[in-house]
Amino acid sequence: MYSNRKFYENYVSTRDVELLHDYTMRVLKEVGVSFACEEALEVFKKHGANVDGNIVKFDETLLNKALETVPKSLTIYTPDGETKIGERFRPKTVGCYGPPTFLFEDDTYRIAQKDDMVKFLKLMDTSDVTDFVNNSAYDTPDLDKTQDDFYMPQVAMCLKYSKKPTYGNVANSMNVRGKSLKQAAKDIAVLYKEFYDIWDKPVLLTNCCALSPLGYSYEVLDNIIGLVEEGQPVVVITCSMTNLTAPASLMGSVVQNNATILAGIVLTQLINPGTPVLYGSVSTASDMRTVTCATGAPEAQLIQMSALALGRYYQVPVRTGICVTDALKPDYQAGVESFINLMPSYLGKADFILNNAGILSSFAVGSYEKYIMDEEINRVLMRLNKGIDVSDTKGEKILAEIKKAGPLGNFLSGRTPKEYRQEHHLTNLFNRKAGNPQPLYEEIGDIRDRACKIIEERVESYKLPDLTKTQQDILNRFLPEDEKF
Amino acid sequence: MYSNRKFYENYVSTRDVELLHDYTMRVLKEVGVSFACEEALEVFKKHGANVDGNIVKFDETLLNKALETVPKSLTIYTPDGETKIGERFRPKTVGCYGPPTFLFEDDTYRIAQKDDMVKFLKLMDTSDVTDFVNNSAYDTPDLDKTQDDFYMPQVAMCLKYSKKPTYGNVANSMNVRGKSLKQAAKDIAVLYKEFYDIWDKPVLLTNCCALSPLGYSYEVLDNIIGLVEEGQPVVVITCSMTNLTAPASLMGSVVQNNATILAGIVLTQLINPGTPVLYGSVSTASDMRTVTCATGAPEAQLIQMSALALGRYYQVPVRTGICVTDALKPDYQAGVESFINLMPSYLGKADFILNNAGILSSFAVGSYEKYIMDEEINRVLMRLNKGIDVSDTKGEKILAEIKKAGPLGNFLSGRTPKEYRQEHHLTNLFNRKAGNPQPLYEEIGDIRDRACKIIEERVESYKLPDLTKTQQDILNRFLPEDEKF
Repeated sequence: MYSNRKFYENYVSTRDVELLHDYTMRVLKEVGVSFACEEALEVFKKHGANVDGNIVKFDETLLNKALETVPKSLTIYTPDGETKIGERFRPKTVGCYGPPTFLFEDDTYRIAQKDDMVKFLKLMDTSDVTDFVNNSAYDTPDLDKTQDDFYMPQVAMCLKYSKKPTYGNVANSMNVRGKSLKQAAKDIAVLYKEFYDIWDKPVLLTNCCALSPLGYSYEVLDNIIGLVEEGQPVVVITCSMTNLTAPASLMGSVVQNNATILAGIVLTQLINPGTPVLYGSVSTASDMRTVTCATGAPEAQLIQMSALALGRYYQVPVRTGICVTDALKPDYQAGVESFINLMPSYLGKADFILNNAGILSSFAVGSYEKYIMDEEINRVLMRLNKGIDVSDTKGEKILAEIKKAGPLGNFLSGRTPKEYRQEHHLTNLFNRKAGNPQPLYEEIGDIRDRACKIIEERVESYKLPDLTKTQQDILNRFLPEDEKF
Repeated sequence: MYSNRKFYENYVSTRDVELLHDYTMRVLKEVGVSFACEEALEVFKKHGANVDGNIVKFDETLLNKALETVPKSLTIYTPDGETKIGERFRPKTVGCYGPPTFLFEDDTYRIAQKDDMVKFLKLMDTSDVTDFVNNSAYDTPDLDKTQDDFYMPQVAMCLKYSKKPTYGNVANSMNVRGKSLKQAAKDIAVLYKEFYDIWDKPVLLTNCCALSPLGYSYEVLDNIIGLVEEGQPVVVITCSMTNLTAPASLMGSVVQNNATILAGIVLTQLINPGTPVLYGSVSTASDMRTVTCATGAPEAQLIQMSALALGRYYQVPVRTGICVTDALKPDYQAGVESFINLMPSYLGKADFILNNAGILSSFAVGSYEKYIMDEEINRVLMRLNKGIDVSDTKGEKILAEIKKAGPLGNFLSGRTPKEYRQEHHLTNLFNRKAGNPQPLYEEIGDIRDRACKIIEERVESYKLPDLTKTQQDILNRFLPEDEKF
């Protein structure tokens, strides 16, 4: 069990949730949500929604019907095990997700190439705090882009480099041609089923992002329909920005996000009732001085807490995130903002966290070094969530210890006691040494240098998974030429 | 009003608090607390405590009697206003407190001199998030140490450089000779009374740190008695480390700290019932690999949350802290750990925060740059604590805005709306710009460079307070030669 510390309840009361829900229903009934996909519109029409052009409006009856069939938790299956996602389980995580540019260890920014993405896969595979692997950079320039489908090769890379389950992105019109995106999504699902030889269970989890305000693109809808028809769960999320793609106020952002997410969730249940779906939001604040998103802002945390409160209210598994910052380097700002953003997810709690490590400059830059640093935040938050063990048994033992040490005595004895080891998180990255600061700094080096050493060790310790001949053959049908077995 | 979000309640239940209290009482009755001061022992004896040598033991009757007279809140008076400390008020803060070494803007560590301490006073005086000034470095090498009392000159410096109230430290046997420390503490209190011409109210707040485990030095006790006799409030704190000066477990640390703090609080009330006193703890974890304190550890936050829960239980104003880190530079680790440590204080909440900015390397190094960065954490936490405004009035307005924008519309209009400005914290230090990262980084520079610019601006904007001739004359009696008016 993982305690849900319900951090959000200190910010969003039951009354607040009910009010947010009421205004959400009015948005769904009076404004509606745009679905740019005939098949989706037909589904809504068939189930009695009010459909006018691309705009779908519905009331609480249809919402309740759909929510009734959303599973309270879900499991992703691979041949190596089951990954459970739901309120009673530790939040499951995905690392750095998709930025085109990386900050490299030589402190330069460059467009990421396939091998850089592979290096990230190795870090995610060897991480103790990242559960899912994924493509850390999409559509790198060195892929063979003359192919009609150069998305599938990227999908196959995840299966080649890690036995951890994969978190997927949607196929889109840039990386798939010559077939519908619905078919592309189905093809991906079937690849996983075949590779794992698991045909009737969820084997893949995919990110499906709405267009704020209140819309879904045909690309995302095609993917949702294809995946859901294949019985594969999706994560429906919004990624709005206050005063740009959402109202100026936080309440406005939350109401609009909620309406959008619920409309997507309803669609999944109308297509294939009982398909697992996650309620997700990484909607954020903006900075109107620069007209940019402000992912590291405290308002982003408040929006996330509201999303957690609403997801729990609807009893749908929740995704929040995100270990993100607007800083360009893994500096003080990056530490503060990443912690702010990841905190509600671990202490809130969320069931699923995308981008639990490795992101800089909003979502635009990936960084191995920051990945290593962010891993530490994940560990710290898990320690915090464990809380403090207060019990009578412990009390008696403590009293004996305090008596033995006595006033002005000390507690340092030969062996470090079990209680210490059980209750203390010991970091391997953050400095804990004290002394004359200048020579000490020369000894321990900059935190970025220390992170670089850990990267090296991790990449060196990495081992390519053992795959069967059948699995290798399956992947060889899709892998980039120089990646084939 | 400042909302108490009671963050700690998610970690420390009512049952936990009661259990912590019960074991605390057993420590106080069965083990006792050492008071190295005859006068203090006499006071305890007179009020029926069990005194054996330096060890004082007492039961709940005496504790309850003392707690009954502790004021629920307190006010520090200066001629310019009142600073209120208590649960209903915003936490009041003191900045960088006392490290002998600073990290300077040229990235070198050096022993701080008087002028460096003055520069810190200027930053604290011009800060929007620091309420009290203090000596950021004590007993700097360039003070005239041939004087019997070179503590008073340092006290006078605070009064010279800022009209904000002062947070004091105890006079000690290093910086005061030729008179008792009780007299030294009284002399300080009288200086404030005379300088402010306020004779019958609290004018000064002073840090009084116990010796863990379970003891008070004669130096601290002399100061407590002197200050309390002058009607001046004190902050009683512990600063223990798990498995070194406290038991290995967090519960053990909390029970021992609680017994120690309560014993100090009882003494203040027995001497002068009704004198304001704060319940304080900055006790922390340790790292047994290096046998150092681990101020940035998540366990430190849990210990702080327990202290908050207990302080509230006893209805005594609470001090926690601390914007501290074990990092040697204001880096990623510093950002994370400072936030971890300051969070329970703002969201918990504490009534008083010492070290709200500017500390590195546990408590050993001060940094102007980190002070500027930490100020931003204080602002972020205050914004977070404001929470999210959910109301019917706002709901109707939002609905109209969402209708106007419509699905796939946008919210960007001519003027940035009032709601945006009301609800968004805009940072002047953290980067919010986005774009091609390399040229952007060259444009904005490193966060430390940006902090240095702010330091310069702040020091330039600083103005020495206008003091009356009488006040100047009072200070001239104590100020170092080159600081006299």
